[in-house]
Amino acid sequence: MPEFLARVEVRLKPTVNDPQGNTVAQALGSLGFEEVMGVRVGKLIEVTLTAVSQEAATAQVSEMGKQLLANPVIELFDFQVEAV
Amino acid sequence: MPEFLARVEVRLKPTVNDPQGNTVAQALGSLGFEEVMGVRVGKLIEVTLTAVSQEAATAQVSEMGKQLLANPVIELFDFQVEAV
Repeated sequence: MPEFLARVEVRLKPTVNDPQGNTVAQALGSLGFEEVMGVRVGKLIEVTLTAVSQEAATAQVSEMGKQLLANPVIELFDFQVEAV
Repeated sequence: MPEFLARVEVRLKPTVNDPQGNTVAQALGSLGFEEVMGVRVGKLIEVTLTAVSQEAATAQVSEMGKQLLANPVIELFDFQVEAV
């Protein structure tokens, strides 16, 4: 079966506080990067999978995002699938 | 000053073991996604900053990656900067 690479981006919802991002922003400020206005930290999940077609792979990855990769209460996800 | 959004992708080097990714892969398998061959988990860091130009913003973000955002021993980073 053809092989695909899905790049899933998981972000906190814009209204959700991001302590990790705030810490990174403060650290950057301490290092002298005074032009930083804000930082948000999310996840980049790369899934290699086999599927009969790109459409099938896309459907699978969408389901993975809903069931496991993102927490729907506080996170949003989107993804791209490409043949490899 | 113009405002820019930098999207920094931080990945473990390909030779570095990724226990988090392996755990996600196993969990996906347990959920019935048997076509998953592998998972790698990285970070997606979105930095909002001001700069005089896109070139200046790019130089700043490159420096941030080297100094703080990625651990050069085990991680690689790349990024894109766009005006917002």
